[in-house]
Amino acid sequence: MNVTVAVDCMGGDHGPSVTVPAVLAFLRGHPGAHAILVGREEVLTPLAGEALAAPGGRLRIHPASQVVGMDEPPKSAVRAKKDSSMRVAIDLVKRGEAQAAVSAGNTGALMAIARFVLKTLPGIDRPAICFALPTVKGHAYALDLGANPECTAEHLLQFGIMGAMLASALDHIERPTVGLLNVGAEEIKGNELTKQAAELLRQSSLNYYGYVEGDDIYKGRTEVVVCDGFVGNVALKTSEGLAKMLTTFLREEFMRSPFSKLMGLMARPVLRRFRHRIDPGRYNGAVLLGLRGVVLKSHGSADAFAFEQALARAADAASNRLIERIGDKMAALAGANGECA
Amino acid sequence: MNVTVAVDCMGGDHGPSVTVPAVLAFLRGHPGAHAILVGREEVLTPLAGEALAAPGGRLRIHPASQVVGMDEPPKSAVRAKKDSSMRVAIDLVKRGEAQAAVSAGNTGALMAIARFVLKTLPGIDRPAICFALPTVKGHAYALDLGANPECTAEHLLQFGIMGAMLASALDHIERPTVGLLNVGAEEIKGNELTKQAAELLRQSSLNYYGYVEGDDIYKGRTEVVVCDGFVGNVALKTSEGLAKMLTTFLREEFMRSPFSKLMGLMARPVLRRFRHRIDPGRYNGAVLLGLRGVVLKSHGSADAFAFEQALARAADAASNRLIERIGDKMAALAGANGECA
Repeated sequence: MNVTVAVDCMGGDHGPSVTVPAVLAFLRGHPGAHAILVGREEVLTPLAGEALAAPGGRLRIHPASQVVGMDEPPKSAVRAKKDSSMRVAIDLVKRGEAQAAVSAGNTGALMAIARFVLKTLPGIDRPAICFALPTVKGHAYALDLGANPECTAEHLLQFGIMGAMLASALDHIERPTVGLLNVGAEEIKGNELTKQAAELLRQSSLNYYGYVEGDDIYKGRTEVVVCDGFVGNVALKTSEGLAKMLTTFLREEFMRSPFSKLMGLMARPVLRRFRHRIDPGRYNGAVLLGLRGVVLKSHGSADAFAFEQALARAADAASNRLIERIGDKMAALAGANGECA
Repeated sequence: MNVTVAVDCMGGDHGPSVTVPAVLAFLRGHPGAHAILVGREEVLTPLAGEALAAPGGRLRIHPASQVVGMDEPPKSAVRAKKDSSMRVAIDLVKRGEAQAAVSAGNTGALMAIARFVLKTLPGIDRPAICFALPTVKGHAYALDLGANPECTAEHLLQFGIMGAMLASALDHIERPTVGLLNVGAEEIKGNELTKQAAELLRQSSLNYYGYVEGDDIYKGRTEVVVCDGFVGNVALKTSEGLAKMLTTFLREEFMRSPFSKLMGLMARPVLRRFRHRIDPGRYNGAVLLGLRGVVLKSHGSADAFAFEQALARAADAASNRLIERIGDKMAALAGANGECA
């Protein structure tokens, strides 16, 4: 793996105290990878320590004087923060000095900057946010999870292509199954958008499965699940809220009485394995798909373990030629439709 | 509580073997209530047994020769099944012999028959499906959960009114808070539909909270959550799928080794309380709102305990004048808009 990842070290709820240790752990686990720490040099240098001087030159700092605020409007981030750690990390991808950028900062700003600097791939109207959700069979890639609250059927087709190529790149599945999220599995179910999108997906060269329902996501019915950004965002956040409520209830039951506390203590190794299995940190790293470069968004509250997962996923996507795969598929689609690629 | 509930005893995955015992338990728990068992007399009579002859005449059978199939298209159920247990139960509400109808049958057919027989209330364009979801604070009424995959802003306003009146009737809250489901809490977020609906809700006499996100549902941010039927159905089914996956994972961890099996055995009372707390059966009974009569849809796979909850909720809604509350509120709205009620 000969990949360089540019890391926005200043973003996220915890900033460099989490991002820098995560990068060091990532480099230890990926011997062929390189990383560029982007942010305030005076903060990053002491945190990175001797790793900066290690043989092989796999780690360096690229200075950036500004930081994009977690609540900063995307427009202002694009216009007024040209030397922000987020912007500089993406500039490094644009210039070819890095093959992927990772940030735990503000999603809207990251999407706006990435789109402004990198541009979308030919044939892609809008980038989408894609996330690997755990399923009983492993995981499924769902998109769009919030970038596009209003979509056309063509957008959903493009999401299907991007999601399938991501599954191919990260999981080495040749023809991943693609499901279209709907309110029922029967052909007559759904709204105008899903009916039109189903038609386009059926005609495409994708391995289109058909409609899937909300519960099919976690059943792992298909490897990719496509929906508009409004529905996807609601499904994702509803899931987060429910998972949090259920784990709270479980903890409360184990804290209710001295007996249940004792049980909780004794069953701790079992409960810990359960918690690890559903730990959202393991799935950290949403991919901003459709851009001319690999960009990953880490959860803002990610700890070092979770941020490291996002770095690993970014390096994996870049070294498995994610962007080229999407570009090739879009060119083939344009060719099949008799258009200029 | 002087209410008669008409029960479609033939519907659902289990039919009379579940519905009849549930009715008997419901009558024991609600001394003022009456029930009419609707279905094949020869099947229902032996199951109901001596309760039919009990003093007070609180239980009787009303024969119906047909059954609506679980996969039967709604149109065919309306046209060809005029003596189905589902149809006859709703006819009893129409004729005033019962104040509420409950069925565990096919949702689409139940909605179509209820709409055809009972009609919608003045000012209500479309009935909606409303469900009480558990939250960390108690529960929240969410609608529409699938009847209307395509909605206008006016529909969402009507859903807000119907949901608020349901919360008033069942939980005795005078002015329940109403949230509009969106992809962000800021005013600029969302699609055209949510922006227009927010404007209508703000101008209404409802206790409108503003936008809520997916995770706010389970946080109990508002007492009522309004969304279109596509988004609501996806959120509900995604939740069902996730809850099932998490409980499967928990069980698997407690079955992994002899040690964890022992822990599971010892912690059984704690785990049982947890399961009871999240048991969807406790929340069974979706209300079909907007009709000129109380109609509840039980989950098709409900057991007797769950079906009894739906019966209790139906009786509660009818005795707390749910239909009159919605009618009054719609009339006030029409009056405020200078229209004829």
